[in-house]
Amino acid sequence: MSTAGKVIKCKAAVAWEPNKPLVIEEVEVAPPQANEVRIKIVATAVCHTDLYHVFELEDGFPIVLGHEGAGIVESVGSGVTEFQPGDKVIPLCNPQCRECRFCKSPKTNQCEKGWLAHSSVVLASPDSRLTCKGKKVLQYVGTSTFSEYTVVNQIALAKIDPAAPLDKVCLLGCGVCTGFGAAVNTAKVEPGSTCAVFGLGAVGLAAVMGCSAAGAKRIIAVDINPEKFEKAKVFGATECVNPKDHDKPISKVLAEMTNGGVDFSLECVGNVEVMRTALESCVEGWGVSVIVGWTDVADFAARPVQLIAGRTWKGSLLGGFKCKDGIPEMVKAYLDKKVKLDEFITHNMTLDQINDAFELMKRGECIRTVLSVSPQ
Amino acid sequence: MSTAGKVIKCKAAVAWEPNKPLVIEEVEVAPPQANEVRIKIVATAVCHTDLYHVFELEDGFPIVLGHEGAGIVESVGSGVTEFQPGDKVIPLCNPQCRECRFCKSPKTNQCEKGWLAHSSVVLASPDSRLTCKGKKVLQYVGTSTFSEYTVVNQIALAKIDPAAPLDKVCLLGCGVCTGFGAAVNTAKVEPGSTCAVFGLGAVGLAAVMGCSAAGAKRIIAVDINPEKFEKAKVFGATECVNPKDHDKPISKVLAEMTNGGVDFSLECVGNVEVMRTALESCVEGWGVSVIVGWTDVADFAARPVQLIAGRTWKGSLLGGFKCKDGIPEMVKAYLDKKVKLDEFITHNMTLDQINDAFELMKRGECIRTVLSVSPQ
Repeated sequence: MSTAGKVIKCKAAVAWEPNKPLVIEEVEVAPPQANEVRIKIVATAVCHTDLYHVFELEDGFPIVLGHEGAGIVESVGSGVTEFQPGDKVIPLCNPQCRECRFCKSPKTNQCEKGWLAHSSVVLASPDSRLTCKGKKVLQYVGTSTFSEYTVVNQIALAKIDPAAPLDKVCLLGCGVCTGFGAAVNTAKVEPGSTCAVFGLGAVGLAAVMGCSAAGAKRIIAVDINPEKFEKAKVFGATECVNPKDHDKPISKVLAEMTNGGVDFSLECVGNVEVMRTALESCVEGWGVSVIVGWTDVADFAARPVQLIAGRTWKGSLLGGFKCKDGIPEMVKAYLDKKVKLDEFITHNMTLDQINDAFELMKRGECIRTVLSVSPQ
Repeated sequence: MSTAGKVIKCKAAVAWEPNKPLVIEEVEVAPPQANEVRIKIVATAVCHTDLYHVFELEDGFPIVLGHEGAGIVESVGSGVTEFQPGDKVIPLCNPQCRECRFCKSPKTNQCEKGWLAHSSVVLASPDSRLTCKGKKVLQYVGTSTFSEYTVVNQIALAKIDPAAPLDKVCLLGCGVCTGFGAAVNTAKVEPGSTCAVFGLGAVGLAAVMGCSAAGAKRIIAVDINPEKFEKAKVFGATECVNPKDHDKPISKVLAEMTNGGVDFSLECVGNVEVMRTALESCVEGWGVSVIVGWTDVADFAARPVQLIAGRTWKGSLLGGFKCKDGIPEMVKAYLDKKVKLDEFITHNMTLDQINDAFELMKRGECIRTVLSVSPQ
């Protein structure tokens, strides 16, 4: 019996307020309106940004979090021709409308219709299609994958290869593309270069993989948790450095290892002090440092001479990928065994266990936990 | 009677201590050693960086300041084949040895033998050739043009067209190349783009000229002193904005004028708050902000999301020009009437009047003062 055109009642993890565990609730998911697509979420991973919303922000509740998911189209609203029921898809927290001046420029993967452009963490327009106990529930960065069903705008959805395993390629919805693309698209790591990656969570490991794919000669992986080093080598790190093993600042250690500093550094922690260290670890003259880790509660800073000496400071959002184009290509690269995904997944759980997954992430005991949401 | 090989006694302005007027003294200038060139300085301009040394720094005294000069070769040390007595030259505060990894890279105008690489404001090696009253006097950024004679390493000297008027092209030793090149070489301003230049001293005006030369469609000149606006238009500004005329932050004013922000912004003040404003005035997606103004006593800062949204933050040293190559080309461009210089010069004085020139600059009453040092 088709559910198209009807409200779907299903299970979702609702964040009712800051600093509290999520609650598994029955939610109502309205049918897609014009230009919208309703998706059955099959699998979702848990990303630090979900955690950040619950534990760092005061506003934006109640909300259904989750933005690193994959699923199957259930039904489409009017005006949708690109998708049809049964398509395998990945929701995009960074949309691609193909029509705005950003989408038309090769210089950026921003979209004027995206949530960042509106300085908002909720779906800008139209409104959320989720309600719970009679209350409107906010939709996280236009996606909300911690729900069995969700509705997204068609500009925020990518159709992927039908052969793709959704419980693996869900990782391409955010973290892996973010790190990989930051190296390949934003830093534009060059063959033969020397790179440093700060922070070896999923994003940092993906950045290591990106540096490797770009042909870097030396990839120095930096983390204060040496248990991450073995995995970093799997993704291509040539050396691993623990700042705790050194008395001097890690930027000085790296400068000594590399004749003055690395060519490219990537900050994948989301810590403003580490951002400064990453910049200072770059060689004068041409060093490029990319801020990848997300934080928006403090300023990053440095001395002007550190840029005047020839360094460049950039930031990367979703690895610079124009997502409707780029994510299906990354799915293809995974199927062709050109990028790794399985190696990021340390835990598999169900949506009911979301709070356990959050705890694992808070304790740094996982790389990525994939939650099974709906049966495929 | 040749002075070659002999100590020259001549006049120089010595900065004996911080926060005090310079003193015109008789100094001894030793003959050039191997790879060195002794120059008769004909004219020098006064730059904010000279002022900065006296009024912002505690160390680096006694010193002969001045780094924006032009002169004539008096004699050369052994191993010097590129220069001979009588050559018209410009001393380079940013040398070009042509041999180090920086000089060999097209990505940077840094030189491993330059003073910045040594984090020092004095000639790194060999030592200063200046003494006064029996004391060694430091040489400012390898040049010291506030002296009738000075000795520089041959890597820090550019031979220029014999037709060049030294009392004009001295400006190319620092400020004009710094601003012009920051737009053309570092920001890489594109034809048809929208630019903002913060601060309309000589460096800022040169940046305006650089944006214009690069084909920018809109060049918005920003200064809190509206008396600078007329001159800015001479150099190509299409609009002028005084932050004091607006209640809202100037970055918001510029965003409203430009559909979200400028493509390129150049900070030519040397103020860390203005650096932040310049970054925030850039459009998300592809905005490039360049720090041109020199200061090293405070940190610049911004929120990570301001870079993650697609902006790039760079710095520019001497406009990105590899100076031995670039400055003679700029001299040629002036002789060919492709860049303006005369319009920067608001005052002509003699070396004896150096403290008056400093006062004019402190009060913001000049663009550039050119001092006649030795008769040509």
